[in-house]
Amino acid sequence: MYRFDNDYHCGAHPLILEALREHNDEGYDGYGLDLWCEKASEEIRKHLDLPGAAIHFVEGATQANFTVISSALRPWQSVLSPATGHIHAHETGAVEHTGHKIELLPTEDGKITASQVREVVEGYRDSEVQEHITQPKMVYISFPTEMGSLYTKAELEELHQVCRSYGLYLFADGARMGYGLGADTCDVTLKDLSRLTDVFTIGGTKCGALLGEAVVVGNPQIQTGFRASMKQNGALMAKGWLLGLQFYTLFKDGLYFEINRKACEYAMRIRKAFEDEGVAPYIDSHTNQQFVVLSRRQLEYLEKNYVLQHWEKIDEDYTLVRVCTSWSTTPEEVDALVSNIERI
Amino acid sequence: MYRFDNDYHCGAHPLILEALREHNDEGYDGYGLDLWCEKASEEIRKHLDLPGAAIHFVEGATQANFTVISSALRPWQSVLSPATGHIHAHETGAVEHTGHKIELLPTEDGKITASQVREVVEGYRDSEVQEHITQPKMVYISFPTEMGSLYTKAELEELHQVCRSYGLYLFADGARMGYGLGADTCDVTLKDLSRLTDVFTIGGTKCGALLGEAVVVGNPQIQTGFRASMKQNGALMAKGWLLGLQFYTLFKDGLYFEINRKACEYAMRIRKAFEDEGVAPYIDSHTNQQFVVLSRRQLEYLEKNYVLQHWEKIDEDYTLVRVCTSWSTTPEEVDALVSNIERI
Amino acid sequence: MYRFDNDYHCGAHPLILEALREHNDEGYDGYGLDLWCEKASEEIRKHLDLPGAAIHFVEGATQANFTVISSALRPWQSVLSPATGHIHAHETGAVEHTGHKIELLPTEDGKITASQVREVVEGYRDSEVQEHITQPKMVYISFPTEMGSLYTKAELEELHQVCRSYGLYLFADGARMGYGLGADTCDVTLKDLSRLTDVFTIGGTKCGALLGEAVVVGNPQIQTGFRASMKQNGALMAKGWLLGLQFYTLFKDGLYFEINRKACEYAMRIRKAFEDEGVAPYIDSHTNQQFVVLSRRQLEYLEKNYVLQHWEKIDEDYTLVRVCTSWSTTPEEVDALVSNIERI
Amino acid sequence: MYRFDNDYHCGAHPLILEALREHNDEGYDGYGLDLWCEKASEEIRKHLDLPGAAIHFVEGATQANFTVISSALRPWQSVLSPATGHIHAHETGAVEHTGHKIELLPTEDGKITASQVREVVEGYRDSEVQEHITQPKMVYISFPTEMGSLYTKAELEELHQVCRSYGLYLFADGARMGYGLGADTCDVTLKDLSRLTDVFTIGGTKCGALLGEAVVVGNPQIQTGFRASMKQNGALMAKGWLLGLQFYTLFKDGLYFEINRKACEYAMRIRKAFEDEGVAPYIDSHTNQQFVVLSRRQLEYLEKNYVLQHWEKIDEDYTLVRVCTSWSTTPEEVDALVSNIERI
Repeated sequence: MYRFDNDYHCGAHPLILEALREHNDEGYDGYGLDLWCEKASEEIRKHLDLPGAAIHFVEGATQANFTVISSALRPWQSVLSPATGHIHAHETGAVEHTGHKIELLPTEDGKITASQVREVVEGYRDSEVQEHITQPKMVYISFPTEMGSLYTKAELEELHQVCRSYGLYLFADGARMGYGLGADTCDVTLKDLSRLTDVFTIGGTKCGALLGEAVVVGNPQIQTGFRASMKQNGALMAKGWLLGLQFYTLFKDGLYFEINRKACEYAMRIRKAFEDEGVAPYIDSHTNQQFVVLSRRQLEYLEKNYVLQHWEKIDEDYTLVRVCTSWSTTPEEVDALVSNIERI
Repeated sequence: MYRFDNDYHCGAHPLILEALREHNDEGYDGYGLDLWCEKASEEIRKHLDLPGAAIHFVEGATQANFTVISSALRPWQSVLSPATGHIHAHETGAVEHTGHKIELLPTEDGKITASQVREVVEGYRDSEVQEHITQPKMVYISFPTEMGSLYTKAELEELHQVCRSYGLYLFADGARMGYGLGADTCDVTLKDLSRLTDVFTIGGTKCGALLGEAVVVGNPQIQTGFRASMKQNGALMAKGWLLGLQFYTLFKDGLYFEINRKACEYAMRIRKAFEDEGVAPYIDSHTNQQFVVLSRRQLEYLEKNYVLQHWEKIDEDYTLVRVCTSWSTTPEEVDALVSNIERI
Repeated sequence: MYRFDNDYHCGAHPLILEALREHNDEGYDGYGLDLWCEKASEEIRKHLDLPGAAIHFVEGATQANFTVISSALRPWQSVLSPATGHIHAHETGAVEHTGHKIELLPTEDGKITASQVREVVEGYRDSEVQEHITQPKMVYISFPTEMGSLYTKAELEELHQVCRSYGLYLFADGARMGYGLGADTCDVTLKDLSRLTDVFTIGGTKCGALLGEAVVVGNPQIQTGFRASMKQNGALMAKGWLLGLQFYTLFKDGLYFEINRKACEYAMRIRKAFEDEGVAPYIDSHTNQQFVVLSRRQLEYLEKNYVLQHWEKIDEDYTLVRVCTSWSTTPEEVDALVSNIERI
Repeated sequence: MYRFDNDYHCGAHPLILEALREHNDEGYDGYGLDLWCEKASEEIRKHLDLPGAAIHFVEGATQANFTVISSALRPWQSVLSPATGHIHAHETGAVEHTGHKIELLPTEDGKITASQVREVVEGYRDSEVQEHITQPKMVYISFPTEMGSLYTKAELEELHQVCRSYGLYLFADGARMGYGLGADTCDVTLKDLSRLTDVFTIGGTKCGALLGEAVVVGNPQIQTGFRASMKQNGALMAKGWLLGLQFYTLFKDGLYFEINRKACEYAMRIRKAFEDEGVAPYIDSHTNQQFVVLSRRQLEYLEKNYVLQHWEKIDEDYTLVRVCTSWSTTPEEVDALVSNIERI
């Protein structure tokens, strides 16, 4: 069985394992105050337009999300999110658990628009009972989204503008950042993200590392107390250098960009194979996640050899399925899947 | 420079790195529902007296602590802790952050007694204004304590009895469990802990793994909703199998017990060396952490070659110092330190 | 100017002021452990089908809501609410502030159905990633709703059934209970509510008292720790007897039912006056809140003499308006308004 | 039986009941945005040295405390409190429930000193692991304290200085403010409090009102979002004008100062009576709360005619007892008690 169900089933890129072995016995200071976190930050900063950005390394994406959000907001403030947002749909109410309301914006493809944000904030401003509702203070987006779609640079600029003009923070969840940047349609760079958001994450767990997310904090207001907040939320890893070393390995020679771009190429081959058989993409995704609606027979046929993820049951006969490549996907696995798709 | 400042400065035992490399490309289900977590649980269960124990693997010790505590308590319930307890002293108010009061019990050596617990609970029971104070519902202890001391089996039996008779949960934080079990004076086994506590942890991060703590939940009431609580607290690792594989490696052939026992032996050599020079142990610790009071000159002399941890300034001239061995300490390092101690 | 904008602009029914004056100097035990809270509970219990119900008196409705919800739920559990629910729309995220997600169900008239609840719970049950989402554990409804509509007994029976069969609590927010029970179409009694819900409130603040809500807890699981939870949430009033005395006064001779029923009759006269002028009710409300869409000119005309509440701007010319009677509304005020409506 | 057990057993000063009756039917805007809250604020402001102070009226003292504290602090910040502080000892962990640690300072008489505060803050500043502990950001004191003692102006100046120099907020809980200001030894005025604290409360519940506390917010940083925070914490009363009207009545002609000063005089008579019989005050209190240690026989004798509050059992034979006067205590009650004390 080849796995195309998700992008976190394998360990790490071999170069990372090699680095871990090489430096295993050296002994480093704890809690992210070490050489490797410093070097990783330097490498990442080269890709940013933010000389003063603080970069923190945490273990997981849910942890990154609620630590960032609860650390930035005051108790009476809320975060706006697309209804498909990971913080709403897949994190067991972690954000509410920290005391904050998520205000949902409808979306078809996982993206929200500047005008949606404006409407909510204007509604708050016009309210005669402002203290009876929460104050929108942050916009949460995912890059790429949970549906594999991508914001264009123009769309990010607009979100940035509306957030700036209303005093909201813009937070981009980049758990799959590598696959966003590696998409053939992507016109956004880390530099853009650093310029257009107040804080964003660069995912390691799904993009080549054993585990770990880099949190890039551009806005100094969010930086205040952030390490204390990390500790309080269980996100200050004793052996933080393990995360630093991994991100250093991923960024020093562009490995991060290369392995994730390849995964996108594989995904596009799979997408094309489906299209050639008349199975249109459910969402126009150019990233590593492809969504297709398959009949029961098609699904049964493919599942003889491949693990796929059932996303949603459409009806008795049809299922929305996620086909997911990753940094660990091999050309052979893709060849095999494509040739099988040609026979559905 | 040799490091004797803490037990988390190195990576992992070589067998763990080897296991990670060996299984890196195999592909496992996510979120702890995998082969390795299962196998690790089986191995650990062999050491328990708890056929139905649920075992969960989380990334860090602070995370384990607040997830266990907040998951077990109702909002109006509190946890009792020695005043030196890690949850009070070193976790940035993480437990209070989840909404719960910690009630502190005074201690000299990091341990608390059954009669201290009884007194607090009786005080609560006798209170005429019970709803104006929090209900003590859990006792938190560390095994070994933050000061390196150990509860005897008899002491644990008493704590167990008092907790049982008053309906409190007993929670043992075993972030350094290996060093507790490996102490020459230890008369407690994992079987005892499984029988005498409601929930306890077995530390990996400080005891040979890259990262990870095993949470052993014996009491079914604490098990209810625990995985959801893990996710909500950022403690449900996507690649949970990485933790399972490490614990499997540590437990399948007794590696965990062996490497940590050796660290205790090294610590006792160091303790003896100090004693021979007239430097008495500050706390009667038989575990990997030794506390001694050193003069400025002694400290300066040792710190030429060794990293030690300043624990507390006693006065202008004297400092309480922690000397810490670990699973990664080598005999050569100990020989060198001992021979230098002989010259202070 | 006559006020028809809300039902909380006046003080209290004269009999309540009289009772306060009469017993002002007598001296009572604190925190709700007094004669009047006891007597009030007895009077209320006569209307219930719940000999063992615990009845608590708290100061306000928002306070009652989040105290009940946070006290009943475990951290990973959520509450279902109509999208118009007060806890979602008008309480500044108070429920999320206690750590819990509200799952919203769409509604036109403020009511939700048993089948909507069933669908959410079945979705949770079928989920393969149950620990990644919150567990629905409580259903919040309002009786009457924020839109003035009422559940029929049959609808409550169905909600009760679905909640019972799935192990959810049913919580009815009765901040305007008096106006629900006093509606000419109401086929529900307090007995029914006590039998069909796990916990519900009987509003005083909007229904004749200076302030205060009675929380009727039928389900013993919700009763556990409830007074401690009240204190923790600032809801255990030092002079609780002030609330008890008010509820005793309202319930001993049926005053509560009488004054609020009258307010409903007045509301129906106003409704009919609008209908006679061709202004149809926006919602089919038989309670004290009437919603109508008025043109700018109509609104300007009425607002010369009456305070009305603008609910929502429909477009440039039309506004959804709330016209609200209360226990303090006089026949003269209604006569005047009706005669003015006849001239719009 | 005459009650000397607490200061909240009676209703309100007759002038307050009269005011409530007089304005009962007038109809006011909701949520504290009314004429009476405005007029009460004006009256209170006359006693302050803070033209821009925001004054809010909430229902209860516990509510005031946790709303102020949680609204002012960021998640990783803590509040310092004397170990006897009401927020620690009698509020069911309400502050921790909002997510914040209370750092306790030892005290004999309920007061803490500037140097105690300095020591904690310096300890935090010197810490090499600052992110592992909470940041002290607020100092909580009570005026008068729970033991009836009072800070002198000089002591408050020092606390003010230390807080200012380290960037901490100073919060004075004035649930019994009237009895503090009315003490014969008091050299502090509301003006002083307004100048020396960042936020303080003026208690109504225990000082002549039916219920209600005035929160005086001098520091604009604490003012940000405060009304939203009130609503979120259930502290924004629908009929806020009831609180405004009471405080207006208490402050417009100095009633508040007069009735509470008289209670202090009564307390001093009682104190003297005890002293004359050789029963020394347990604490040197000049406010309405007197603490004495009585033998079993003395206690039994007095409790035939008076309700006293058992504070703490000293041993088999002796009990620490609180004897409490209030605005509602009459000269006759005091005469009677004094004459009985003369016979113990």
